[in-house]
Amino acid sequence: MVLTVGELINTSCKAVAVAVEDRDVDYIKDIAIKQARAGADYIDVNCGTRVDDEPETMVWLVQTIQSAVEKPLCIDSANSEAIEAGLTEAKEARPMVNSITAESNRYGEVLALVVKYSAKVIALCMDDNAIPDTASDRLRIANWLVNKLIEAGVRKEDIYLDPLVIPLSTSDLAGLDVLETIRAIKAEHPEVHTICGLSNISFGLPNRKVLNQTFLIQTMTAGMDAYVLNPLDRMMMGLLYTSEALLGQDEYCRRYLEIHRKGLYL
Amino acid sequence: MVLTVGELINTSCKAVAVAVEDRDVDYIKDIAIKQARAGADYIDVNCGTRVDDEPETMVWLVQTIQSAVEKPLCIDSANSEAIEAGLTEAKEARPMVNSITAESNRYGEVLALVVKYSAKVIALCMDDNAIPDTASDRLRIANWLVNKLIEAGVRKEDIYLDPLVIPLSTSDLAGLDVLETIRAIKAEHPEVHTICGLSNISFGLPNRKVLNQTFLIQTMTAGMDAYVLNPLDRMMMGLLYTSEALLGQDEYCRRYLEIHRKGLYL
Repeated sequence: MVLTVGELINTSCKAVAVAVEDRDVDYIKDIAIKQARAGADYIDVNCGTRVDDEPETMVWLVQTIQSAVEKPLCIDSANSEAIEAGLTEAKEARPMVNSITAESNRYGEVLALVVKYSAKVIALCMDDNAIPDTASDRLRIANWLVNKLIEAGVRKEDIYLDPLVIPLSTSDLAGLDVLETIRAIKAEHPEVHTICGLSNISFGLPNRKVLNQTFLIQTMTAGMDAYVLNPLDRMMMGLLYTSEALLGQDEYCRRYLEIHRKGLYL
Repeated sequence: MVLTVGELINTSCKAVAVAVEDRDVDYIKDIAIKQARAGADYIDVNCGTRVDDEPETMVWLVQTIQSAVEKPLCIDSANSEAIEAGLTEAKEARPMVNSITAESNRYGEVLALVVKYSAKVIALCMDDNAIPDTASDRLRIANWLVNKLIEAGVRKEDIYLDPLVIPLSTSDLAGLDVLETIRAIKAEHPEVHTICGLSNISFGLPNRKVLNQTFLIQTMTAGMDAYVLNPLDRMMMGLLYTSEALLGQDEYCRRYLEIHRKGLYL
């Protein structure tokens, strides 16, 4: 079964930024409720554009979302203070931290928070040299991260490795490298999860939707089992359930048929 | 690059049966031309419903199609006489025989024709016990077929192994078993091709199109490199090219962009 993280509460989206600026509780609650109803397992919370008051804003967002839905949260920030502010407020089940990387100035601080709050964690395949541009570099960083996290006491099943998707328009191997990274990680650490956002793959190309949808199915086939996505995208969610059924993860196609009855497919 | 076999010239389709009965040359030529233009690499020819005159009808069809298009043909029959009648008339490049199986009453005769005419061949994973219902049975038959064909002198790259797709509605593992068979065959015999028809997977379920499309992408991701399909299905062909681009088989996304300019995507 695939885990989904609803990505819509992010101040890099103009409408969300305005709602946050105005402390518009109803607007934020509404997006949280819609994502939860559409099937999001986690609600991502990102206010990284609030450089002057990210931790305070994170606290307000976490409290607001939790007053509306009972879903666990994914605390999404590059700022350790904001991450800790979010984690202290997160009451619903175990939160997820988005994200740790292999960057030397970020790794230690974020790891300490993940351990302290017993959080799940998204680990991005990047180090001080930024995003790796070969499959073997990506895999080397992936293995480094997984092994370091396990050493630090993080349970394998709490790690969500993100191979980092780069645009197909910048490299013909952008898709294939991700598929190979997933397969290699699954082979070496079957309990470790893999996660990604999909939309980067299609950046710079036309018909982005068909590329994103196709890449969802390809990555699931290779073993990816979590996504950061827009759960209100009906076609994407429909394909996710269809793909699960075809991968033998939906007994008697029960969920596929339920989704059909709800009219998720055109 | 995926190879496609256009499936539309088949007398089990009522309109085609009528055209064949009337020896309607224009109708048959038209379907052949449309499939070739839409990108079919091979044109399948099946008149298996003509039990009284299958070989004569096959000759007429092969001649008619070849008068219209320069594509190689896929001679599709369970009747050795009809297969040989088709092969003797097939002039365009190397024809393909559809199909050989591990059934004892069929294997020897068809093999002799494949060798005599140096044809490519589709090998179905079935034996005297019909379609296997476990992954390991399917793989056992697949390996038997591949090894026997190679022993008989058929080149690995001329073999198109069809794992045989059964409906997901009859088994939750119907899709996964096919994916596993493809991966195992590719691992053991990287030069051997794999082929299938897609529509069986969705038999008995609603929203068949979305299941067929998803299964196309899943099987391509597992390594399948040939399909018997309707090349006039624009959405299916569009997904095929999209999937190729994402699998690193389309330099600089040239074909993807060409298809976009032709308006293949919605």
